[in-house]
Amino acid sequence: MPSLSLGYDFGTESVRVIAVDVSNGRIVGKAAAAYAVIDERLPVLAAGGSHRAGSQAPQPLLPPDYALQDPDEWLSAAASATRAVTSNFPNQSQAVVGIGVAFTSCTMLPCKADGTPLCKAGFADRPLAWPKLWKHHGAKAETDRINSVARDRREPWLDRYGGTIGLEWFFPKILETFNGDRASYDAADVWLEAGDWFVWQLTGAMSSGTPVSGQPVRSTCQAGYKAMWNAGTGFPSREYFETVGLGFGGVLDKLPGEFRSPGERAGVLSPAAAERFGLPAGIPVSTAIIDAHAGVPGAGVADGGTMVLVLGTSSCHMLNSTQEHLVPGVAGVVKGGILPGYYGYETGQASVGDAFAWLVETFNLSHAELTAQAAKLPPGAGGVLALDWLNGCRTPLMDGRLSGAFVGLTLGTTAAQMYRALIEATAFGLRWIVDTLRAGGVPVERFVASGGLPDKSPLLMQIYADVLNEPIALAESSQSVALGAAILGALAAGKDATGHATAADAIKAMARQRKEPVYVPNAEAHRRYQPIYRLYRELANPEGTLAEVMRELRDRGAQ
Amino acid sequence: MPSLSLGYDFGTESVRVIAVDVSNGRIVGKAAAAYAVIDERLPVLAAGGSHRAGSQAPQPLLPPDYALQDPDEWLSAAASATRAVTSNFPNQSQAVVGIGVAFTSCTMLPCKADGTPLCKAGFADRPLAWPKLWKHHGAKAETDRINSVARDRREPWLDRYGGTIGLEWFFPKILETFNGDRASYDAADVWLEAGDWFVWQLTGAMSSGTPVSGQPVRSTCQAGYKAMWNAGTGFPSREYFETVGLGFGGVLDKLPGEFRSPGERAGVLSPAAAERFGLPAGIPVSTAIIDAHAGVPGAGVADGGTMVLVLGTSSCHMLNSTQEHLVPGVAGVVKGGILPGYYGYETGQASVGDAFAWLVETFNLSHAELTAQAAKLPPGAGGVLALDWLNGCRTPLMDGRLSGAFVGLTLGTTAAQMYRALIEATAFGLRWIVDTLRAGGVPVERFVASGGLPDKSPLLMQIYADVLNEPIALAESSQSVALGAAILGALAAGKDATGHATAADAIKAMARQRKEPVYVPNAEAHRRYQPIYRLYRELANPEGTLAEVMRELRDRGAQ
Repeated sequence: MPSLSLGYDFGTESVRVIAVDVSNGRIVGKAAAAYAVIDERLPVLAAGGSHRAGSQAPQPLLPPDYALQDPDEWLSAAASATRAVTSNFPNQSQAVVGIGVAFTSCTMLPCKADGTPLCKAGFADRPLAWPKLWKHHGAKAETDRINSVARDRREPWLDRYGGTIGLEWFFPKILETFNGDRASYDAADVWLEAGDWFVWQLTGAMSSGTPVSGQPVRSTCQAGYKAMWNAGTGFPSREYFETVGLGFGGVLDKLPGEFRSPGERAGVLSPAAAERFGLPAGIPVSTAIIDAHAGVPGAGVADGGTMVLVLGTSSCHMLNSTQEHLVPGVAGVVKGGILPGYYGYETGQASVGDAFAWLVETFNLSHAELTAQAAKLPPGAGGVLALDWLNGCRTPLMDGRLSGAFVGLTLGTTAAQMYRALIEATAFGLRWIVDTLRAGGVPVERFVASGGLPDKSPLLMQIYADVLNEPIALAESSQSVALGAAILGALAAGKDATGHATAADAIKAMARQRKEPVYVPNAEAHRRYQPIYRLYRELANPEGTLAEVMRELRDRGAQ
Repeated sequence: MPSLSLGYDFGTESVRVIAVDVSNGRIVGKAAAAYAVIDERLPVLAAGGSHRAGSQAPQPLLPPDYALQDPDEWLSAAASATRAVTSNFPNQSQAVVGIGVAFTSCTMLPCKADGTPLCKAGFADRPLAWPKLWKHHGAKAETDRINSVARDRREPWLDRYGGTIGLEWFFPKILETFNGDRASYDAADVWLEAGDWFVWQLTGAMSSGTPVSGQPVRSTCQAGYKAMWNAGTGFPSREYFETVGLGFGGVLDKLPGEFRSPGERAGVLSPAAAERFGLPAGIPVSTAIIDAHAGVPGAGVADGGTMVLVLGTSSCHMLNSTQEHLVPGVAGVVKGGILPGYYGYETGQASVGDAFAWLVETFNLSHAELTAQAAKLPPGAGGVLALDWLNGCRTPLMDGRLSGAFVGLTLGTTAAQMYRALIEATAFGLRWIVDTLRAGGVPVERFVASGGLPDKSPLLMQIYADVLNEPIALAESSQSVALGAAILGALAAGKDATGHATAADAIKAMARQRKEPVYVPNAEAHRRYQPIYRLYRELANPEGTLAEVMRELRDRGAQ
């Protein structure tokens, strides 16, 4: 039996678990288990805390833009998927030498000091006491406040985030509870990322309600990209938070724990966790990482200058560089945030596969038919141009109030033209990100794609290559996030257990790109996209009328 | 048997014929017959000129934006519908005392001197020798040329058209043939409106190929609104046309005929026409009128200040006023163009029912279901805002290069929201027209709706009333265009035949509005539409980025 590392990939609706041979990256077992997004009503809980199906009155409707999750479901899904994986090698579970955890971010929650989620500690009827999923968008006014105070005070950390803090980030979500449910805010002893919470549960005690030992280990990745933290100066100052809200300075007292990098050992599997997951106690557990960022090692990328495109319902594009440049509009630059020894740049697009699915589902269409028709169209989608902001614009505008648009519609416009226009719009959005990085002095030299979309849509991949005028290779593994997590688990296990002395060694041994297909740009198609990209950029002008109208429409809709 | 007038309403795809009691407007017979829009390929003609179904190779594909018709089909459809109507009173056809003709405009054609359409005189294989339907959009470059020369020369007639000549009008369509098929242009002796040609056929000879007597009678309505003509100064000057194109000054020699107003007698039914239509010869025939304009008398409106909304696939809004104001962006102000004694204002929206049908047909939806869902939404369509320019903007921008748009789309946007947004966009477009007229000093005091949409969509009617903040009454007849034509036929018949001394007398006797429903504005809905209308106007700014991007997209698509 080879030495194995377990990689956990907590997505929006399920967790995937894979067991990986640390010598060559071969996946020897995999399983997944689903959990719910709570966006209509909180569950009705029985006295003991379990969900109750009976005749009790339902909870009231949640406000629009809410997206919550149940932390017990994360644990039970992870445990059942782990048992499904280890059932492949029932007598060999001692072969597991390391565990790595990738989690959506910023998915976060308030806890008691012992790690019990606040929603399981007497606050089950209060929406703002529950874990907030990354795409929970309830903190619009709070985001504005956090940004305007930071700008007024010329906070030095603001430039590392391209000048704008995002609606989905850590402190806007805490401030939302501070403003909207002070009792829950006051009752919380600890606020932390869900990935850090899960690692804390693995290494401390197991089930909510059982006290965990010590304090959480916080990931420099999540803290650096989502919580305005950096190794040199820590979190923003108490004065800053106090200016944001009278009494909010105390938030710094609710952030206990030591910071470690992904791949550094956070602890070892506790006896209680080992029993629940069906594993031996004592296995080293890596500090957590943001799911998309795990895709960089998982795509076999160990160097600077290669952008890893994680293409899914939304997209994240990660880049390591030896150079630190503070680029306007880039969501975060964090030293060692992705790989040790590099500045990690995170950029993203908030709606990609989600946008295509919106069109397909809203109008009862078929991805396959639309793709076949769209593939026959020339660049430019028959004169239809879209803005891909159906979930706001992440990089470079960081503006959740922007919305999607179609322009150029005529009485002859077809659904396939609109579908292709959406794909092209996401390609233009990616190109804008690359142009922004390059204009800021950050070299972007190679492209590797991963995530669910590349295999689903060769058309999309070719359009991306044509719009960028760059070849795009594909990550070999279709589980690059989980594989990246497993690589971090191998790093936490250490050289004695795995034979890998450095992160680069482990990545090279455990992950790589496919020889083919490599999507090569078509020069004529690129030439035709150039003026259309220019039109996209004109429409996308954040100071323009269209953006202003979008913001006002969104504000009016929120009334 | 009462005295009857026959009203002909030539629409885009069919002609309706009604027989009306001239004493009270009661419809005693009606029929319709269809004809084709030729927008893919010219028909393959047998040697004798009739369509041939056999094995001959098809004609080449027509360019996009072409929309042609076959004049023989107008005649045969009108004849068959007439016979269907008169079969209701087989022995009483002498009861018909007048005939009136309303026709789409500017639908026009080139003829030989005897009235034979050029496409039936050896030019059947040449697309630009065929009648061009109003929505034929092949003359984009020519429209630009006609406008730019007019502006450079500060042509005095330009202000009567709001400063812009439309893509669908008379001279751009002639210039298109002049530029694109000089042989057809040279071979044409007469260019004229289809309505004038049909009246010429009724009063001269009948079938194409048979010489007609004399010259056509041209309608002051069509000439005034679509051919830059007015009673005081006639057509634009030979110098102007010669500057537009070297040799194009000669177009003035291809426009023979006398001008008369709608309701004035153009002639009487010829023996040949009488035989083909199954009517007695000698019946007075009115000069033609544009179809939408016939809707004014057909809606029972005989006064100034009442706007008649003819709501259909596209919409025309007509207004009579005792005041002449040259309003920027208003498509035409013609003295006596609609009713004697008034300045007639024509405004229009190029895509209304067509826009809703586009959404329904493109995505296989149902008008009824979407309407039911859209009716439950509050004003503002859930934050979705549309521009209703799927066929360009007629009033007030007169710009066929503009296109449709949706803004404010999110991952939660529904088809019903987009449907309602399109309805609201057409309401905002109408309000913009009303605001433009009022700002120009033209009183708009009452509203009467007619056309196909009011009965189909009470939701649309209520939204229009709410956005305008004005009550809207409905024309009693669902055939207001054909009824208006029949009223003009009664006027051509004269007081001795009908008892009506004036146009107002005839209108009051033969047409009226319904007592109910009258759509009354809801004050709260109006208040909510106000800021959304302001956003619509911001998006619709003709100098803005969005409009510029639309024009460039259209130009690129046309390459």
